[in-house]
Amino acid sequence: MQGIITGRKPVMEALRAGTNIEKIVFLLGVQGTVIEDIRHAAERNNVPVSQASRQEFRELASDATTQGVVAIVRQSKTFVSLDEIVGTAEAKKEKPLILILDSIEDPQNLGALVRTAECAGVHGVVIPKHHAASVTSAVVKASAGATEHMAMAEVTNIVSTMDELKGRGFWTAGVAVEGDTPFTGFDYTTAAAIVIGNEGKGIRRLVREHCDRLVRIPMYGSLGSLNASVAGALVMYEAARQRHRSSQSG
Amino acid sequence: MQGIITGRKPVMEALRAGTNIEKIVFLLGVQGTVIEDIRHAAERNNVPVSQASRQEFRELASDATTQGVVAIVRQSKTFVSLDEIVGTAEAKKEKPLILILDSIEDPQNLGALVRTAECAGVHGVVIPKHHAASVTSAVVKASAGATEHMAMAEVTNIVSTMDELKGRGFWTAGVAVEGDTPFTGFDYTTAAAIVIGNEGKGIRRLVREHCDRLVRIPMYGSLGSLNASVAGALVMYEAARQRHRSSQSG
Repeated sequence: MQGIITGRKPVMEALRAGTNIEKIVFLLGVQGTVIEDIRHAAERNNVPVSQASRQEFRELASDATTQGVVAIVRQSKTFVSLDEIVGTAEAKKEKPLILILDSIEDPQNLGALVRTAECAGVHGVVIPKHHAASVTSAVVKASAGATEHMAMAEVTNIVSTMDELKGRGFWTAGVAVEGDTPFTGFDYTTAAAIVIGNEGKGIRRLVREHCDRLVRIPMYGSLGSLNASVAGALVMYEAARQRHRSSQSG
Repeated sequence: MQGIITGRKPVMEALRAGTNIEKIVFLLGVQGTVIEDIRHAAERNNVPVSQASRQEFRELASDATTQGVVAIVRQSKTFVSLDEIVGTAEAKKEKPLILILDSIEDPQNLGALVRTAECAGVHGVVIPKHHAASVTSAVVKASAGATEHMAMAEVTNIVSTMDELKGRGFWTAGVAVEGDTPFTGFDYTTAAAIVIGNEGKGIRRLVREHCDRLVRIPMYGSLGSLNASVAGALVMYEAARQRHRSSQSG
Protein backbone atom coordinates (compact mmCIF):
# COMPACT_ATOMS: atom_id res chain seq x y z
CA MET A 1 0.00 0.00 0.00
CA GLN A 2 1.30 3.42 -0.92
CA GLY A 3 0.46 6.96 0.04
CA ILE A 4 1.58 10.31 -1.30
CA ILE A 5 2.85 13.48 0.36
CA THR A 6 2.95 16.55 -1.87
CA GLY A 7 4.51 19.98 -1.42
CA ARG A 8 7.97 21.15 -0.35
CA LYS A 9 7.30 21.84 3.32
CA PRO A 10 5.19 18.73 3.97
CA VAL A 11 7.84 16.51 2.31
CA MET A 12 10.63 18.17 4.31
CA GLU A 13 8.67 17.69 7.50
CA ALA A 14 7.95 14.06 6.72
CA LEU A 15 11.70 13.49 6.21
CA ARG A 16 12.47 15.21 9.50
CA ALA A 17 9.86 13.11 11.31
CA GLY A 18 11.42 9.88 9.97
CA THR A 19 8.30 8.96 7.98
CA ASN A 20 8.67 5.69 6.11
CA ILE A 21 9.32 7.23 2.68
CA GLU A 22 9.95 4.87 -0.21
CA LYS A 23 11.22 7.53 -2.60
CA ILE A 24 11.04 11.21 -3.46
CA VAL A 25 10.26 12.38 -6.99
CA PHE A 26 11.14 15.88 -8.24
CA LEU A 27 9.58 17.48 -11.26
CA LEU A 28 12.40 17.83 -13.82
CA GLY A 29 14.07 21.22 -13.45
CA VAL A 30 12.72 22.31 -10.06
CA GLN A 31 15.20 24.34 -8.03
CA GLY A 32 15.49 26.28 -4.81
CA THR A 33 16.84 26.14 -1.27
CA VAL A 34 14.09 23.91 0.07
CA ILE A 35 14.58 21.50 -2.85
CA GLU A 36 18.29 21.31 -1.96
CA ASP A 37 17.39 20.79 1.71
CA ILE A 38 15.04 17.95 0.76
CA ARG A 39 17.75 16.42 -1.42
CA HIS A 40 20.27 16.48 1.44
CA ALA A 41 17.80 15.21 4.05
CA ALA A 42 16.83 12.37 1.67
CA GLU A 43 20.49 11.45 1.25
CA ARG A 44 21.05 11.43 5.01
CA ASN A 45 18.01 9.17 5.46
CA ASN A 46 18.96 6.86 2.57
CA VAL A 47 15.76 7.76 0.73
CA PRO A 48 16.13 7.35 -3.07
CA VAL A 49 15.47 10.42 -5.16
CA SER A 50 14.44 10.58 -8.82
CA GLN A 51 13.28 13.08 -11.42
CA ALA A 52 10.18 12.87 -13.58
CA SER A 53 9.02 14.70 -16.71
CA ARG A 54 5.88 16.81 -16.36
CA GLN A 55 3.79 14.02 -17.85
CA GLU A 56 5.19 11.27 -15.56
CA PHE A 57 4.89 13.64 -12.63
CA ARG A 58 1.18 14.27 -13.33
CA GLU A 59 0.54 10.54 -13.08
CA LEU A 60 1.83 10.63 -9.52
CA ALA A 61 -0.03 13.73 -8.35
CA SER A 62 -2.55 15.63 -10.38
CA ASP A 63 -3.23 18.59 -8.13
CA ALA A 64 -1.53 21.96 -8.31
CA THR A 65 -0.08 21.94 -4.79
CA THR A 66 2.89 19.65 -5.35
CA GLN A 67 5.42 22.50 -5.86
CA GLY A 68 7.37 19.99 -7.92
CA VAL A 69 7.95 17.50 -5.10
CA VAL A 70 6.20 14.28 -4.23
CA ALA A 71 7.16 11.74 -1.55
CA ILE A 72 5.88 8.22 -1.98
CA VAL A 73 5.14 6.82 1.44
CA ARG A 74 4.91 3.20 2.37
CA GLN A 75 1.74 2.86 4.42
CA SER A 76 2.65 2.00 7.97
CA LYS A 77 2.29 -1.55 9.17
CA THR A 78 -1.29 -2.57 9.94
CA PHE A 79 -1.35 -4.27 13.29
CA VAL A 80 -3.76 -7.05 14.18
CA SER A 81 -5.32 -8.29 17.41
CA LEU A 82 -4.35 -11.38 19.40
CA ASP A 83 -7.66 -12.89 18.28
CA GLU A 84 -6.63 -12.58 14.66
CA ILE A 85 -3.25 -14.22 15.32
CA VAL A 86 -4.86 -17.14 17.14
CA GLY A 87 -7.52 -17.32 14.41
CA THR A 88 -4.83 -17.63 11.70
CA ALA A 89 -3.26 -20.58 13.49
CA GLU A 90 -6.63 -22.26 14.02
CA ALA A 91 -7.53 -21.80 10.35
CA LYS A 92 -4.37 -23.79 9.54
CA LYS A 93 -5.33 -26.38 12.17
CA GLU A 94 -2.12 -25.57 14.04
CA LYS A 95 -1.54 -24.76 17.69
CA PRO A 96 -0.69 -21.04 17.81
CA LEU A 97 2.98 -20.10 18.22
CA ILE A 98 3.61 -16.47 19.16
CA LEU A 99 6.82 -14.46 19.52
CA ILE A 100 6.71 -11.73 22.20
CA LEU A 101 9.43 -9.08 21.94
CA ASP A 102 9.62 -7.43 25.35
CA SER A 103 11.70 -4.35 24.47
CA ILE A 104 13.95 -4.89 21.48
CA GLU A 105 15.66 -1.57 20.70
CA ASP A 106 17.75 -2.28 17.62
CA PRO A 107 15.82 -2.09 14.31
CA GLN A 108 18.25 -4.66 12.84
CA ASN A 109 17.34 -7.13 15.56
CA LEU A 110 13.62 -6.45 15.28
CA GLY A 111 13.77 -6.97 11.50
CA ALA A 112 15.86 -10.14 11.80
CA LEU A 113 13.52 -11.57 14.46
CA VAL A 114 10.42 -10.95 12.33
CA ARG A 115 12.19 -12.50 9.31
CA THR A 116 13.14 -15.61 11.26
CA ALA A 117 9.66 -15.82 12.82
CA GLU A 118 8.15 -15.84 9.32
CA CYS A 119 10.54 -18.59 8.19
CA ALA A 120 10.00 -20.70 11.34
CA GLY A 121 6.21 -20.75 10.98
CA VAL A 122 5.44 -18.41 13.91
CA HIS A 123 1.83 -17.17 13.62
CA GLY A 124 2.27 -13.71 15.09
CA VAL A 125 4.69 -11.29 16.73
CA VAL A 126 3.71 -9.13 19.70
CA ILE A 127 5.61 -5.87 20.26
CA PRO A 128 5.09 -3.17 22.89
CA LYS A 129 3.77 0.23 21.81
CA HIS A 130 6.37 2.11 23.86
CA HIS A 131 10.05 1.81 24.84
CA ALA A 132 10.93 -0.37 21.88
CA ALA A 133 11.85 -0.23 18.20
CA SER A 134 8.81 0.37 16.01
CA VAL A 135 8.28 -0.94 12.48
CA THR A 136 10.27 1.70 10.57
CA SER A 137 11.65 1.38 7.06
CA ALA A 138 14.95 0.13 8.55
CA VAL A 139 13.03 -2.70 10.23
CA VAL A 140 11.13 -3.53 7.03
CA LYS A 141 14.47 -3.68 5.18
CA ALA A 142 16.22 -5.78 7.85
CA SER A 143 13.27 -8.17 7.80
CA ALA A 144 13.72 -8.73 4.03
CA GLY A 145 10.05 -7.81 3.67
CA ALA A 146 8.84 -10.30 6.29
CA THR A 147 6.99 -7.51 8.13
CA GLU A 148 4.58 -7.47 5.14
CA HIS A 149 3.70 -11.15 5.65
CA MET A 150 3.84 -11.47 9.42
CA ALA A 151 0.80 -10.79 11.60
CA MET A 152 1.95 -8.34 14.27
CA ALA A 153 0.14 -7.03 17.33
CA GLU A 154 1.22 -3.83 19.08
CA VAL A 155 0.17 -3.84 22.74
CA THR A 156 0.35 -1.28 25.54
CA ASN A 157 1.05 -3.85 28.24
CA ILE A 158 3.01 -7.05 27.60
CA VAL A 159 2.08 -8.47 31.03
CA SER A 160 -1.69 -8.13 30.35
CA THR A 161 -1.14 -9.83 27.00
CA MET A 162 0.63 -12.70 28.75
CA ASP A 163 -2.26 -13.00 31.21
CA GLU A 164 -4.67 -13.12 28.30
CA LEU A 165 -2.59 -15.80 26.59
CA LYS A 166 -2.43 -17.83 29.80
CA GLY A 167 -6.25 -17.65 29.96
CA ARG A 168 -6.32 -19.08 26.43
CA GLY A 169 -4.16 -22.03 27.46
CA PHE A 170 -0.79 -20.82 26.20
CA TRP A 171 2.50 -21.92 27.77
CA THR A 172 5.20 -19.28 27.80
CA ALA A 173 8.98 -19.68 27.58
CA GLY A 174 11.15 -16.66 28.37
CA VAL A 175 14.63 -16.83 26.87
CA ALA A 176 17.08 -15.81 29.61
CA VAL A 177 20.74 -16.33 30.39
CA GLU A 178 19.75 -17.29 33.94
CA GLY A 179 17.06 -19.76 32.79
CA ASP A 180 17.01 -23.16 34.47
CA THR A 181 15.48 -25.17 31.59
CA PRO A 182 17.56 -26.01 28.51
CA PHE A 183 15.78 -24.41 25.52
CA THR A 184 15.41 -27.85 23.95
CA GLY A 185 13.70 -29.11 27.12
CA PHE A 186 10.54 -27.00 26.80
CA ASP A 187 7.44 -28.36 25.04
CA TYR A 188 6.55 -25.94 22.24
CA THR A 189 3.93 -28.22 20.66
CA THR A 190 1.08 -26.76 22.76
CA ALA A 191 -0.24 -23.23 22.20
CA ALA A 192 3.03 -21.48 23.04
CA ALA A 193 4.66 -18.08 23.32
CA ILE A 194 8.39 -17.33 23.22
CA VAL A 195 9.54 -14.16 24.99
CA ILE A 196 12.74 -12.34 23.97
CA GLY A 197 13.99 -9.46 26.10
CA ASN A 198 15.98 -6.32 25.55
CA GLU A 199 19.46 -6.62 23.96
CA GLY A 200 21.28 -5.40 27.04
CA LYS A 201 18.94 -5.84 29.98
CA GLY A 202 17.09 -9.00 29.02
CA ILE A 203 13.44 -9.58 29.92
CA ARG A 204 11.95 -7.09 32.41
CA ARG A 205 11.25 -8.48 35.89
CA LEU A 206 7.44 -8.47 35.75
CA VAL A 207 7.42 -10.03 32.29
CA ARG A 208 9.95 -12.63 33.43
CA GLU A 209 7.75 -13.52 36.41
CA HIS A 210 4.85 -14.14 34.02
CA CYS A 211 6.77 -16.75 32.02
CA ASP A 212 5.96 -20.39 32.79
CA ARG A 213 9.60 -21.28 32.24
CA LEU A 214 12.86 -19.45 31.68
CA VAL A 215 14.82 -21.31 29.04
CA ARG A 216 18.55 -21.01 28.50
CA ILE A 217 20.77 -21.57 25.49
CA PRO A 218 23.97 -23.39 26.42
CA MET A 219 27.19 -21.37 26.09
CA TYR A 220 30.27 -23.38 25.21
CA GLY A 221 32.75 -20.49 25.01
CA SER A 222 33.80 -17.60 27.22
CA LEU A 223 31.09 -15.12 26.22
CA GLY A 224 27.98 -14.78 28.38
CA SER A 225 25.26 -14.33 25.80
CA LEU A 226 24.20 -14.50 22.18
CA ASN A 227 22.79 -11.69 20.06
CA ALA A 228 19.04 -11.31 20.77
CA SER A 229 18.05 -12.17 17.21
CA VAL A 230 20.25 -15.27 17.21
CA ALA A 231 18.88 -16.44 20.58
CA GLY A 232 15.34 -15.91 19.29
CA ALA A 233 16.12 -17.82 16.09
CA LEU A 234 17.47 -20.84 17.96
CA VAL A 235 14.36 -21.08 20.15
CA MET A 236 11.90 -20.49 17.28
CA TYR A 237 13.57 -23.19 15.20
CA GLU A 238 13.58 -25.59 18.15
CA ALA A 239 9.81 -25.00 18.37
CA ALA A 240 9.50 -25.62 14.61
CA ARG A 241 11.57 -28.82 14.90
CA GLN A 242 9.40 -30.18 17.71
CA ARG A 243 6.18 -29.27 15.90
CA HIS A 244 7.32 -30.76 12.63
CA ARG A 245 8.53 -33.96 14.29
CA SER A 246 5.27 -34.35 16.21
CA SER A 247 3.19 -33.70 13.07
CA GLN A 248 5.26 -36.32 11.20
CA SER A 249 4.85 -38.97 13.89
CA GLY A 250 1.22 -38.05 14.55
CA MET B 1 46.60 -5.12 22.74
CA GLN B 2 46.87 -1.40 22.08
CA GLY B 3 49.02 0.79 19.88
CA ILE B 4 49.42 4.53 19.62
CA ILE B 5 49.44 6.96 16.71
CA THR B 6 50.69 10.47 17.51
CA GLY B 7 50.61 13.72 15.56
CA ARG B 8 47.89 15.56 13.70
CA LYS B 9 48.57 14.38 10.17
CA PRO B 10 49.20 10.71 11.07
CA VAL B 11 45.98 10.59 13.14
CA MET B 12 43.98 12.23 10.33
CA GLU B 13 45.42 9.75 7.83
CA ALA B 14 44.65 6.82 10.09
CA LEU B 15 41.03 8.01 10.33
CA ARG B 16 40.84 8.36 6.56
CA ALA B 17 42.26 4.87 6.07
CA GLY B 18 39.62 3.39 8.36
CA THR B 19 42.20 2.22 10.92
CA ASN B 20 40.65 0.43 13.87
CA ILE B 21 40.88 3.37 16.32
CA GLU B 22 39.53 2.86 19.82
CA LYS B 23 39.56 6.53 20.76
CA ILE B 24 41.26 9.84 20.11
CA VAL B 25 42.64 11.93 22.94
CA PHE B 26 43.30 15.66 22.60
CA LEU B 27 45.54 17.64 24.92
CA LEU B 28 43.24 20.05 26.77
CA GLY B 29 43.04 23.35 24.88
CA VAL B 30 44.53 22.34 21.53
CA GLN B 31 42.97 24.15 18.59
CA GLY B 32 43.30 24.56 14.86
CA THR B 33 41.84 23.53 11.52
CA VAL B 34 43.37 20.05 11.51
CA ILE B 35 42.11 19.45 15.06
CA GLU B 36 38.60 20.35 13.88
CA ASP B 37 39.02 18.08 10.84
CA ILE B 38 40.07 15.22 13.11
CA ARG B 39 37.11 15.90 15.39
CA HIS B 40 34.66 15.75 12.47
CA ALA B 41 36.25 12.69 10.89
CA ALA B 42 36.15 10.95 14.28
CA GLU B 43 32.45 11.77 14.61
CA ARG B 44 31.71 10.43 11.13
CA ASN B 45 33.55 7.20 11.97
CA ASN B 46 31.95 6.84 15.42
CA VAL B 47 35.33 7.11 17.10
CA PRO B 48 35.02 8.47 20.66
CA VAL B 49 37.00 11.61 21.44
CA SER B 50 38.19 12.83 24.83
CA GLN B 51 40.40 15.51 26.34
CA ALA B 52 43.24 15.02 28.78
CA SER B 53 45.22 17.35 31.02
CA ARG B 54 48.93 17.74 30.26
CA GLN B 55 49.77 15.22 32.98
CA GLU B 56 47.26 12.58 31.81
CA PHE B 57 48.35 13.21 28.25
CA ARG B 58 52.02 12.56 29.08
CA GLU B 59 51.09 9.15 30.40
CA LEU B 60 49.75 8.26 26.97
CA ALA B 61 52.62 9.61 24.90
CA SER B 62 55.80 11.02 26.28
CA ASP B 63 57.52 12.26 23.16
CA ALA B 64 57.33 15.76 21.79
CA THR B 65 55.81 14.88 18.42
CA THR B 66 52.21 14.40 19.47
CA GLN B 67 51.06 17.94 18.50
CA GLY B 68 48.38 17.49 21.14
CA VAL B 69 46.70 14.50 19.48
CA VAL B 70 46.94 10.80 20.17
CA ALA B 71 44.91 7.98 18.62
CA ILE B 72 44.67 4.76 20.57
CA VAL B 73 44.60 1.92 18.11
CA ARG B 74 43.28 -1.52 18.73
CA GLN B 75 45.92 -3.87 17.35
CA SER B 76 44.55 -5.61 14.33
CA LYS B 77 43.35 -9.15 14.72
CA THR B 78 46.17 -11.70 14.79
CA PHE B 79 45.27 -14.50 12.46
CA VAL B 80 46.31 -18.08 13.06
CA SER B 81 46.98 -21.08 10.83
CA LEU B 82 44.70 -24.07 10.25
CA ASP B 83 47.26 -26.11 12.22
CA GLU B 84 46.74 -23.91 15.26
CA ILE B 85 42.93 -24.21 15.03
CA VAL B 86 43.12 -27.99 14.78
CA GLY B 87 45.71 -28.02 17.56
CA THR B 88 43.39 -26.08 19.89
CA ALA B 89 40.64 -28.65 19.37
CA GLU B 90 43.02 -31.54 19.94
CA ALA B 91 44.35 -29.97 23.13
CA LYS B 92 40.75 -30.01 24.41
CA LYS B 93 40.39 -33.62 23.21
CA GLU B 94 37.59 -32.49 20.90
CA LYS B 95 37.04 -33.15 17.20
CA PRO B 96 37.71 -29.85 15.45
CA LEU B 97 34.68 -27.81 14.34
CA ILE B 98 35.43 -24.99 11.90
CA LEU B 99 33.26 -22.27 10.41
CA ILE B 100 34.17 -21.22 6.87
CA LEU B 101 32.73 -17.88 5.72
CA ASP B 102 32.91 -17.89 1.94
CA SER B 103 32.29 -14.21 1.23
CA ILE B 104 30.27 -12.50 3.95
CA GLU B 105 30.09 -8.78 3.09
CA ASP B 106 28.17 -7.23 5.97
CA PRO B 107 30.30 -6.42 9.05
CA GLN B 108 27.21 -6.96 11.26
CA ASN B 109 26.83 -10.49 9.92
CA LEU B 110 30.54 -11.25 10.22
CA GLY B 111 30.53 -10.03 13.84
CA ALA B 112 27.35 -11.93 14.71
CA LEU B 113 28.70 -15.13 13.14
CA VAL B 114 31.96 -14.94 15.09
CA ARG B 115 30.03 -14.24 18.30
CA THR B 116 27.76 -17.24 17.77
CA ALA B 117 30.72 -19.41 16.77
CA GLU B 118 32.40 -18.53 20.06
CA CYS B 119 29.25 -19.38 22.02
CA ALA B 120 28.64 -22.63 20.14
CA GLY B 121 32.12 -24.00 20.84
CA VAL B 122 33.48 -23.64 17.30
CA HIS B 123 37.29 -23.92 17.34
CA GLY B 124 38.10 -21.54 14.52
CA VAL B 125 36.69 -19.32 11.79
CA VAL B 126 38.17 -19.21 8.29
CA ILE B 127 37.64 -16.04 6.23
CA PRO B 128 38.93 -15.14 2.77
CA LYS B 129 41.57 -12.43 2.41
CA HIS B 130 39.72 -10.73 -0.46
CA HIS B 131 36.14 -9.94 -1.55
CA ALA B 132 34.76 -10.15 1.96
CA ALA B 133 34.31 -8.11 5.12
CA SER B 134 37.53 -7.88 7.14
CA VAL B 135 37.84 -7.66 10.92
CA THR B 136 37.22 -3.92 11.34
CA SER B 137 36.12 -2.15 14.52
CA ALA B 138 32.47 -2.53 13.38
CA VAL B 139 33.00 -6.29 13.25
CA VAL B 140 34.69 -6.36 16.64
CA LYS B 141 31.74 -4.41 18.07
CA ALA B 142 29.07 -6.56 16.39
CA SER B 143 30.86 -9.64 17.72
CA ALA B 144 30.57 -8.32 21.31
CA GLY B 145 34.32 -8.85 21.59
CA ALA B 146 34.20 -12.47 20.39
CA THR B 147 36.85 -11.68 17.74
CA GLU B 148 39.31 -11.35 20.63
CA HIS B 149 38.65 -14.91 21.79
CA MET B 150 38.07 -16.70 18.53
CA ALA B 151 40.91 -18.26 16.55
CA MET B 152 40.58 -16.93 13.01
CA ALA B 153 42.48 -17.88 9.87
CA GLU B 154 42.58 -15.59 6.84
CA VAL B 155 43.20 -17.55 3.64
CA THR B 156 43.76 -16.59 0.00
CA ASN B 157 41.88 -19.54 -1.40
CA ILE B 158 38.91 -21.12 0.34
CA VAL B 159 38.89 -24.10 -2.05
CA SER B 160 42.53 -25.00 -1.25
CA THR B 161 41.67 -24.76 2.45
CA MET B 162 38.76 -27.14 1.93
CA ASP B 163 41.07 -29.56 0.11
CA GLU B 164 43.50 -29.38 2.99
CA LEU B 165 40.70 -30.02 5.49
CA LYS B 166 39.47 -32.98 3.44
CA GLY B 167 43.01 -34.39 3.58
CA ARG B 168 42.85 -34.10 7.36
CA GLY B 169 39.62 -36.11 7.49
CA PHE B 170 37.10 -33.26 7.80
CA TRP B 171 33.52 -33.54 6.55
CA THR B 172 32.10 -30.33 5.16
CA ALA B 173 28.50 -29.10 5.19
CA GLY B 174 27.61 -26.12 2.99
CA VAL B 175 24.49 -24.26 4.10
CA ALA B 176 22.40 -23.65 0.97
CA VAL B 177 18.76 -22.97 0.17
CA GLU B 178 18.96 -25.64 -2.54
CA GLY B 179 20.58 -28.22 -0.21
CA ASP B 180 19.16 -31.74 -0.28
CA THR B 181 20.03 -32.76 3.29
CA PRO B 182 18.08 -31.31 6.24
CA PHE B 183 20.60 -29.44 8.42
CA THR B 184 19.76 -31.72 11.33
CA GLY B 185 20.53 -34.78 9.16
CA PHE B 186 24.29 -34.15 8.83
CA ASP B 187 26.74 -35.72 11.29
CA TYR B 188 28.76 -32.89 12.86
CA THR B 189 30.41 -35.11 15.49
CA THR B 190 33.40 -35.92 13.26
CA ALA B 191 36.03 -33.32 12.39
CA ALA B 192 33.65 -30.97 10.59
CA ALA B 193 33.46 -27.67 8.74
CA ILE B 194 30.35 -25.57 8.16
CA VAL B 195 30.38 -23.28 5.11
CA ILE B 196 28.25 -20.12 4.98
CA GLY B 197 28.06 -18.18 1.73
CA ASN B 198 27.47 -14.60 0.71
CA GLU B 199 24.32 -12.82 1.96
CA GLY B 200 22.85 -12.42 -1.51
CA LYS B 201 24.57 -14.92 -3.77
CA GLY B 202 25.12 -17.82 -1.40
CA ILE B 203 28.16 -20.10 -1.62
CA ARG B 204 30.26 -19.71 -4.78
CA ARG B 205 30.03 -22.58 -7.25
CA LEU B 206 33.55 -24.00 -6.80
CA VAL B 207 33.29 -23.82 -3.02
CA ARG B 208 29.85 -25.44 -3.18
CA GLU B 209 31.24 -28.29 -5.27
CA HIS B 210 33.88 -28.91 -2.61
CA CYS B 211 31.28 -29.46 0.14
CA ASP B 212 30.51 -33.07 1.05
CA ARG B 213 26.89 -32.15 1.60
CA LEU B 214 24.66 -29.14 1.04
CA VAL B 215 22.38 -28.78 4.02
CA ARG B 216 19.12 -26.83 4.03
CA ILE B 217 17.15 -25.16 6.79
CA PRO B 218 13.41 -25.79 6.42
CA MET B 219 11.28 -22.75 5.58
CA TYR B 220 7.74 -22.80 6.94
CA GLY B 221 6.62 -19.39 5.67
CA SER B 222 6.59 -17.55 2.37
CA LEU B 223 10.14 -16.15 2.45
CA GLY B 224 12.91 -18.01 0.64
CA SER B 225 15.82 -17.63 3.02
CA LEU B 226 17.07 -16.64 6.45
CA ASN B 227 19.63 -13.99 7.30
CA ALA B 228 23.15 -15.46 6.83
CA SER B 229 24.06 -15.02 10.50
CA VAL B 230 20.83 -16.71 11.62
CA ALA B 231 21.32 -19.62 9.19
CA GLY B 232 24.89 -20.02 10.46
CA ALA B 233 23.73 -19.92 14.08
CA LEU B 234 21.14 -22.65 13.55
CA VAL B 235 23.69 -24.99 11.97
CA MET B 236 26.43 -24.26 14.53
CA TYR B 237 24.05 -24.93 17.41
CA GLU B 238 22.83 -28.12 15.76
CA ALA B 239 26.48 -29.21 15.65
CA ALA B 240 26.87 -28.23 19.33
CA ARG B 241 23.71 -30.15 20.23
CA GLN B 242 24.91 -33.32 18.48
CA ARG B 243 28.37 -33.07 20.02
CA HIS B 244 27.04 -32.44 23.50
CA ARG B 245 24.53 -35.28 23.23
CA SER B 246 27.18 -37.69 21.98
CA SER B 247 29.62 -36.65 24.71
CA GLN B 248 26.91 -37.20 27.33
CA SER B 249 25.99 -40.65 26.05
CA GLY B 250 29.64 -41.59 25.37
